[in-house]
Amino acid sequence: MDPAKLLDILGNENRRKIIQLLASRPCYVSEISGRLGVGPKAIISHLSLLEEAGLIECSVDEQRRKYFNIANNMRLEVSVSPYAYTMALQNINFDREKRESSAVEKNGPASRDESSGLFLELSGRIRELKIRHEELTQMQKQLQAEYTELMDRCLDSIEEIARNSVECELLFELLKNEATAAVLCYNLRLHPSIITSNLMDLAERGFVEYTIKNNQQYWKIPEAGVENK
Amino acid sequence: MDPAKLLDILGNENRRKIIQLLASRPCYVSEISGRLGVGPKAIISHLSLLEEAGLIECSVDEQRRKYFNIANNMRLEVSVSPYAYTMALQNINFDREKRESSAVEKNGPASRDESSGLFLELSGRIRELKIRHEELTQMQKQLQAEYTELMDRCLDSIEEIARNSVECELLFELLKNEATAAVLCYNLRLHPSIITSNLMDLAERGFVEYTIKNNQQYWKIPEAGVENK
Repeated sequence: MDPAKLLDILGNENRRKIIQLLASRPCYVSEISGRLGVGPKAIISHLSLLEEAGLIECSVDEQRRKYFNIANNMRLEVSVSPYAYTMALQNINFDREKRESSAVEKNGPASRDESSGLFLELSGRIRELKIRHEELTQMQKQLQAEYTELMDRCLDSIEEIARNSVECELLFELLKNEATAAVLCYNLRLHPSIITSNLMDLAERGFVEYTIKNNQQYWKIPEAGVENK
Repeated sequence: MDPAKLLDILGNENRRKIIQLLASRPCYVSEISGRLGVGPKAIISHLSLLEEAGLIECSVDEQRRKYFNIANNMRLEVSVSPYAYTMALQNINFDREKRESSAVEKNGPASRDESSGLFLELSGRIRELKIRHEELTQMQKQLQAEYTELMDRCLDSIEEIARNSVECELLFELLKNEATAAVLCYNLRLHPSIITSNLMDLAERGFVEYTIKNNQQYWKIPEAGVENK
């Protein structure tokens, strides 16, 4: 799924509530409608949208009643900062088939004592994962703070080395991502001749360089220190 | 900001485009309108919504023209999986005042050579941060996959140890989070007497225990192994 598509879906409060409810347990339409205090018609329309997007799926129980559950395992990350707006959506595989076949490998049902021990062990591991998740999240937060601070300093430094405003903009663009001249023209809305002449000047002073990838010329900031001319 | 509020904001494609544009540079209303091909009236209404939420701020240039830029530094993480729907929003401090005062401490303007070296050094560090970010993101992905797999196994294990469906639901709820009896009643929509008697049975078999926090009794899965009765 496209991250933008997921943001469109999550932009509605009732859809968020439905997802939250289904993440706690599979539900019938009537249950969802009752829990949310929203008419079944509206719930059904949200459910079909979620189902089309592949976020939930529908099954039928013994009494032929339809129930819904989360079909997906994914992680969306959005960063908004003065120098970056990024969205990333990761799909996380969880292969139930594979897991079930490995469970079958065990020799028959476990004794009650074994089951108890296993449950407590597994719940301990889940607790550890939660702590680890919290640690990683803190590290990401720290990283984004450092990134913003570095970008701030880089902008000051660009102002010192750039000879005109086009150079400033070019260096700032390339700092975020390497780019072809065409992309730079488009993003900065400048004529190709202006982009090219400024890139040449910057290259001569060692502030940009290019590489060829997939037969295309990409401009970027050099990786190692260079001699100043 | 509430993560739900941010999701409401990001649920609109034009607002996402505005944020993306402002993250690349501060812009006037006319620029935003031209870039997005959306009338200025609609742009202004999106901008006031974003400004009210504290996501962007507005300044005035020398010609008294208003321009907008991102005012915030934050990270939103949403996980949707069969056993969890979590949203977390982190606000990341970036204290420009502090940074600027520390920049002043340096002795006067740097020479051109020093500036060039500094720029290349800073851009190298930005590159490193991007790689580190990618690594952390992969680790989070791996973690969520493990979490889902463990929850799958835990559910099987709960089915073996639980004596009825209420015990199943109680253990599943407590696996996700410790909770008071009141929260469990509310989430599972069961009568307090049913919740209490099942908790007592589970506690006797060593599958749940309680702690007192802020004068409230919280039920949870025990941390260490327990003797089976």
